[in-house]
This record gives sequence, structure tokens and C-alpha cells, in this order.
Amino acid sequence: MKIAVAGKGGAGKTFVAAGFARLYAGMGYQVYAVDAEPGGSLGPELGLSRHEIDAVRPIMVMREFIDDRRGDGALYLMNPNVGGAADQFSADAGGVRFLKMADIKPAGSSCYCEEHGFLLALMNSLLLGERDVVILDMGAGVEHLARGTCRGADLMLVVTEATRAGVEMARAIRALSAGLGIGQVLVVANKIHSEKEELFIRANFHRVELLGLLHESKEAADRAIGIGGRGSAGDPWMPEFEALYERLTSKEAT
Amino acid sequence: MKIAVAGKGGAGKTFVAAGFARLYAGMGYQVYAVDAEPGGSLGPELGLSRHEIDAVRPIMVMREFIDDRRGDGALYLMNPNVGGAADQFSADAGGVRFLKMADIKPAGSSCYCEEHGFLLALMNSLLLGERDVVILDMGAGVEHLARGTCRGADLMLVVTEATRAGVEMARAIRALSAGLGIGQVLVVANKIHSEKEELFIRANFHRVELLGLLHESKEAADRAIGIGGRGSAGDPWMPEFEALYERLTSKEAT
Repeated sequence: MKIAVAGKGGAGKTFVAAGFARLYAGMGYQVYAVDAEPGGSLGPELGLSRHEIDAVRPIMVMREFIDDRRGDGALYLMNPNVGGAADQFSADAGGVRFLKMADIKPAGSSCYCEEHGFLLALMNSLLLGERDVVILDMGAGVEHLARGTCRGADLMLVVTEATRAGVEMARAIRALSAGLGIGQVLVVANKIHSEKEELFIRANFHRVELLGLLHESKEAADRAIGIGGRGSAGDPWMPEFEALYERLTSKEAT
Repeated sequence: MKIAVAGKGGAGKTFVAAGFARLYAGMGYQVYAVDAEPGGSLGPELGLSRHEIDAVRPIMVMREFIDDRRGDGALYLMNPNVGGAADQFSADAGGVRFLKMADIKPAGSSCYCEEHGFLLALMNSLLLGERDVVILDMGAGVEHLARGTCRGADLMLVVTEATRAGVEMARAIRALSAGLGIGQVLVVANKIHSEKEELFIRANFHRVELLGLLHESKEAADRAIGIGGRGSAGDPWMPEFEALYERLTSKEAT
């Protein structure tokens, strides 16, 4: 299972990616969570310290290793049971293996095209077992879709807040994701504060497009400014993720 | 005066860019506001309809015209007094001339490197009069800084919410902006809800780094879901922008 998470900046892609990563890990899946935004916040969201995140080598560096080993099944390198490379290229975040696409590059040095190209190649060469889940936390906006980085994902989760700009971006991302041949593209509405916002979302997306809603949580807001401990499967918002998962599996069944 | 606006996704870059655009326009400046995010929301934020935004040709297309006219002073094309090209490449948004870098490209077609390169070249070739202000609303994150698109801006405004992830991204953007040789790089803290959040911001940025704070506004939130009219110089948050401007000009004097 390869899941990509996209949306307008600030919609809560990283929150959703981390929530699903924890959920699958809690069910016994081997989860690989990839931060595809340079300087992104998936590591902290998964409870890793700056030191732990900095110690992880970007997957771009993995290319040398994969060439040596003839390419296929690069995720093999990440498997903690194999030993060796796993500790260089990933960090354990409470049962989730955290990876990052790229570090922040110097100002005016270059784009991230090469990294996106490699991430796409890596995703397409992965031989995933039935109990493996890869979750890609993409950068904001549409450039990764123009680049086609997520081609090969099984599921695109499009995260939006209840704002016109978020909804417009979500619609554009839905259309682009379908254009990449991603079979399942579902919207998750995040930070819903009120019934007015819930109605706004339901007026903008058809039932079959909408996976579900996540409500604004005081605990999540406090966590964002560093109050409270590291995230865990016991976080108060996890039941809402479980409800999304239920709906996802029932959608898959139909 | 060339002002670029950057920050983590969702921090409110577009809100800040539009606020300053209105402020300068209200003082009689000729303001050019450029949406540098494909599918971005600067147009709607400035009160333009989808139809009006779609009718604007992306500045990338301007390249042909500029080659014809020998390159220099491309902004000349945008000047409403010149006529002709201005109406093709920009739209009037209540006294602000709105431009866009690029439209959304098809899925899997290409990156936006060429557009960023052209925007950089355009910014550097601009011959601005004393009463001209260009405001660039950049995409989320750091890739435009790795690309160096804003090299040549006089001022970088780094927008952040009161979150750890926002503050970390703001610090990274500050460092990268300085690396591009941008002389003045100032933080604007946006969507401040509480004294706790204000203290969090003040604990994270030195007085000289921080231009000021914008408080969460119910009116702005309502506007975001389409309640209330188009934005204008009479918006209730404009006095906070005026305070930022006061502080900016006093900083420039010191």
C-alpha cells in the first residue's frame, strides 16, 4: 500500500500523514513515512528530535547503494531486520520508520527536480509486502503533481481546511492525481471548527469524494506550540483517524 | 521596492501579500502583485473572480514580447498607461495590478524551473520608479529559495503562525534569504489567537527580527469561507498592516 498526502499549504498534510502512519503501525503494519518536503515537519510530528532527524541521511544518498545492489526492491535497504542501511536512512519513531527525501539546500543552489525524480523511481521499484505501508508526505501545492512524483501511489489523500482557497486547491489536486493514474483519490477535511465549516465542506465535495472530517483539537494546537509530550497512538484525535480508516476499508470493499 | 513574501504553507503569505499590496496602493503607489504559486490564491484574496484570474496570461508568456522589445524594463509592459500588454498580463484588483507566474500544468508534465528562472530574470531587469512596488507571493516552503527566485528583492517578509513547525521553517527561510543577499529579512507572525501565542513568538524571535504580529480575525476567517464581500482598504485588519508599515519605515530609517 502506497499512500500519498497532498493539499494546500497549512491544511494539515503532515498531521494526517503522521496520524495514518501511527494507525497502521498500531495494527502491526511495517510503516515507512517519507517527508518529501525539504525542511518539512513530519519528523517532529512523529515525535523525533531535531538531532534524530538530522542524523537521518536523505534517501537521495541511497541511490549509490541501490546502484550497487542492482536496483530492485530498494525498501529492502530500509528493513530493520536486514540491518546496515536502515539505521543510516531512517529513524524509528515509535514503530514508524521515518525517512526524508532531501535536506534544505543552500540558497540559490538548485531545484529539487533530481530528488523528485529519484523518489518517483524509488516508489516504482519498491516491492512491498502485504504488511508494508509507505506514506509520502508531499510538499504544499501542485508542483509535485506537475512533476508526477506520486505516480504509482495506490491512494492519494487530499487534505483541506474549510476555506475557499483550500477547496479550490483540493479540487485541482484531485484532478491532477487522477491524471497521474492514481486509482483512489479522497479528500480529508481537517481543522473543522464548527457546523458551518462542516456544511461548507459537504457543499463542496460529493459524498464519494470525501473520506471524512477531522475536528479542530485543542490538544493538537497545544502540541503544535510544544505543550504536551510526543505524539502517540493514545492521542485524543486517533479515534477520528480510526473512523477514517473504517470508511477507507469499506470504500475499498465496495 | 521589491518585496517577497515567504513562509511555511498555510502561515498566511497570501493574506500578508494582499494586505501590503492594498496598503501601498492606498498610499498612491503603483503596486504589482505577483502570484508565484501555480494555482495560488492571491487573485481571490485581492477580490478577483475566477473568470478574471483565468483571463490573465501568465508572465511566462511575456517572454516572447520582451525578446521583441529588447529585454529591459519588462514592467513597462505592465504599466496601465502604456496600454496593450497590460490588460493581457495583469488584471486590476481595486488599484493593485495582479499578475501570475504560471498556470497549473498537466499532471506529470514538468517542473516549474523555467518559470522560476524567468521570474528571477524579470525581477532583475525591472526598472522600477520611486512610486512602484512589486510584491511577490511565493510558494510554500524552501524550494524557491534553493532556486534563488527572490534574489534581487529588497525585503523578504517571512510569515509564520505560532507553531514550532512554522517557526523552524521561518528560521530556515531567514537564513536562506540572507544567503541570497536580500538586505532586509523580517518576520511577520500571523493568526495570533492568544497571549500564550504572542509570548511563544517573542521567545523565538529577537525584537529586530520581528516586524510585528497580526491577530486572528473572525472577519478574515469568514472571508476565507466566502462570507462577506471582496477585500478592500476598509477591511478590519488593515490598521494592523498600517502598524507593520510604520515599524517597517522606522526600521528603514535606523
